[in-house]
Amino acid sequence: MFVYADNAATTAVSKKVLESMIPYFSEVYGNPSSLYSVGQKAKEVLEESRERIAKLIGADTKEIYFTSGGSEADNQAIISAARIGEKQGKKHIISTAFEHHAVLHTLKELEKEGFEVTLLDVHSNGVITPEQVADAIREDTALVTVMYANNEIGTIQPIAEIGAICKEKGVIFHTDAVQAVSHVHINVKEENIDMLSISAHKFHGPKGVGVLYVRKGVRLTNIINGGAQESGKRAGTENLAGIVGMTVALEDAIANIDANNERLAKLQDKLIEGLSKIPYSELNGDREKRVKSNVNFCFEGVEGESLLLLLDDKGVAVSSGSACTSGSLDPSHVLLAIGRPHEVAHGSLRISLGEDATEEQVQYIIDSVTEVIEYLRSFSPFWRDLVGGKRPHVFKEYSVA
Amino acid sequence: MFVYADNAATTAVSKKVLESMIPYFSEVYGNPSSLYSVGQKAKEVLEESRERIAKLIGADTKEIYFTSGGSEADNQAIISAARIGEKQGKKHIISTAFEHHAVLHTLKELEKEGFEVTLLDVHSNGVITPEQVADAIREDTALVTVMYANNEIGTIQPIAEIGAICKEKGVIFHTDAVQAVSHVHINVKEENIDMLSISAHKFHGPKGVGVLYVRKGVRLTNIINGGAQESGKRAGTENLAGIVGMTVALEDAIANIDANNERLAKLQDKLIEGLSKIPYSELNGDREKRVKSNVNFCFEGVEGESLLLLLDDKGVAVSSGSACTSGSLDPSHVLLAIGRPHEVAHGSLRISLGEDATEEQVQYIIDSVTEVIEYLRSFSPFWRDLVGGKRPHVFKEYSVA
Repeated sequence: MFVYADNAATTAVSKKVLESMIPYFSEVYGNPSSLYSVGQKAKEVLEESRERIAKLIGADTKEIYFTSGGSEADNQAIISAARIGEKQGKKHIISTAFEHHAVLHTLKELEKEGFEVTLLDVHSNGVITPEQVADAIREDTALVTVMYANNEIGTIQPIAEIGAICKEKGVIFHTDAVQAVSHVHINVKEENIDMLSISAHKFHGPKGVGVLYVRKGVRLTNIINGGAQESGKRAGTENLAGIVGMTVALEDAIANIDANNERLAKLQDKLIEGLSKIPYSELNGDREKRVKSNVNFCFEGVEGESLLLLLDDKGVAVSSGSACTSGSLDPSHVLLAIGRPHEVAHGSLRISLGEDATEEQVQYIIDSVTEVIEYLRSFSPFWRDLVGGKRPHVFKEYSVA
Repeated sequence: MFVYADNAATTAVSKKVLESMIPYFSEVYGNPSSLYSVGQKAKEVLEESRERIAKLIGADTKEIYFTSGGSEADNQAIISAARIGEKQGKKHIISTAFEHHAVLHTLKELEKEGFEVTLLDVHSNGVITPEQVADAIREDTALVTVMYANNEIGTIQPIAEIGAICKEKGVIFHTDAVQAVSHVHINVKEENIDMLSISAHKFHGPKGVGVLYVRKGVRLTNIINGGAQESGKRAGTENLAGIVGMTVALEDAIANIDANNERLAKLQDKLIEGLSKIPYSELNGDREKRVKSNVNFCFEGVEGESLLLLLDDKGVAVSSGSACTSGSLDPSHVLLAIGRPHEVAHGSLRISLGEDATEEQVQYIIDSVTEVIEYLRSFSPFWRDLVGGKRPHVFKEYSVA
């Protein structure tokens, strides 16, 4: 059996999406900035896509900017808010310790420029509270950036409440919704979101294209200067095929959120129940406040990379955390942020189901993980010390989340 | 008849390229950063593409960075050189007055930071000389950035000579080769190019993907921070389908440069000869030192936009200049740079033939342009003044370039 269960890393482009893209490679291939018909037809489709995307998240058409993906959108949102802030003498930014690196590393760059960054502690359930945000806001706070759903543990943050606080205090609020937009109904106006990032390849759209929603009145700073595309705020000939594919994919995803979540909730229950039976295991992130596709576990006495590779041999494609940091030997900053000790954060497993996942697949994942962990532990000196009482256990045995 | 003759703006993705991309949307869709087989397969293809691209321009594999296109590549190259320079107290940059806006606008941003930018005057034939560069280089020059071929008039710059001068003087040399790489044989080592920008959609690859070549030893500055992709220098999940398409397209383009140029040279001759017969017209840019696909003319007493729209009615898709600035009412900065007066720079026409252009198509373009210009002039008060002797002509009648 082959089970791809790393949909938080990336997804396959759906047949419908791919078909929607094809005409824009070789038929309607004009440059949308060109004045003749071939270009104008492309322009029409571009603007129609913008309108359709806007409608999906409750934005106005002119508030949608196309980017090359979620990372670019995050970078541009944060840089823009910083530039607005510094003009007003505001050089303080609030975020969380478990954001995506596209956010954290951009904030690091701003720190070099003299910005002060407050990274809110994340509770052990993987959720921050609106009160934490309210308490951290200062007179000189330029931006609050809090991800909508975490990319590793899938926990959903109280975005609407944070939005209300930011609005009241007059602070720009950005959310990286890359892992949320296809799992949770989002309305930027109702939730008082000023900027929001989307990446197409997380919901069966193509790689290399994303969206930055920016509320009217928030002035964007270019990170790519040049031509007048995207109202002069993002230079470069528009990737129309990608944009069309993203639009179709997002419409599909959002139209099916409720039905998918209903199905996925059952599979999530089954997965959590099954994996909890593995001794000394524990679910990472809140049991309820998480996207329905995500299950993330820590296993004591297991090394994440070996776990992945043996699961791969069994045809199970899962990850130990974010794909963006898979090359790294450091334990997940997300798991450290929720208080997992180093040795446990190394033995983590992220399972992110696709909408078409089946019960059989989920059972196969449970069986495979159980078997592989037993195998790995059988020759782990670390595990021997744990069961031999020479090291203390982190989790109570057979912990059920 | 329909003739798409705006290939400098963008090109249709070729059948072969599109077919090469398809497997990477829904089959080999893994995240190249993932450890399991589906991801590793994607990683292999990614690195193989990097190697193939490197070979095409005489670079090493590790010197190739994938970007979202030419504009991003230009921005990152220039920002990187500026950051290297300022650490050494060098805040002077040399460029030319007729660069693409991705270069000029990035330089404008650097001026705000205190960089001094020297824009070299462009000779009336649309070419700068190596001596101009040599004369402009100072102790504090951080970067020379000169485009390989101009995007409007197609003129080719003496890149190897400029590269040699920069190497000798220890100045970083970047060239925007977006309009050149599929028309001219480029070898970055032989030409002493430190950084070079490429955009896939200019040679029948997809939109939204490009390359920044960076010589080993030149330290890149991220403009998109986040994950560890592209050796940590460009965050964001790699657009593998786009990268594969670009690779196939570039191999195709470069393999056919000589054959295409031979064919195109004849069509270029025919076009220039035909359009020169229009009274008070003149070729923009050097007759010889230009890419073979490009013909650019100014016509007195004609307004560029009307010309385009009427040609569009006849099925001829051409432009008055760069697509990136088509929305603008300003005359082309390129034509002003080569000394065309405002009133003439408004009446310009860029024809950029595809490799599959035919003699019949070229004849149709000549006939259509001739007819449309005659028509437009027939009710232009400006033209009446010109022929009535109330205004001086800029070009001598029936000027043949």
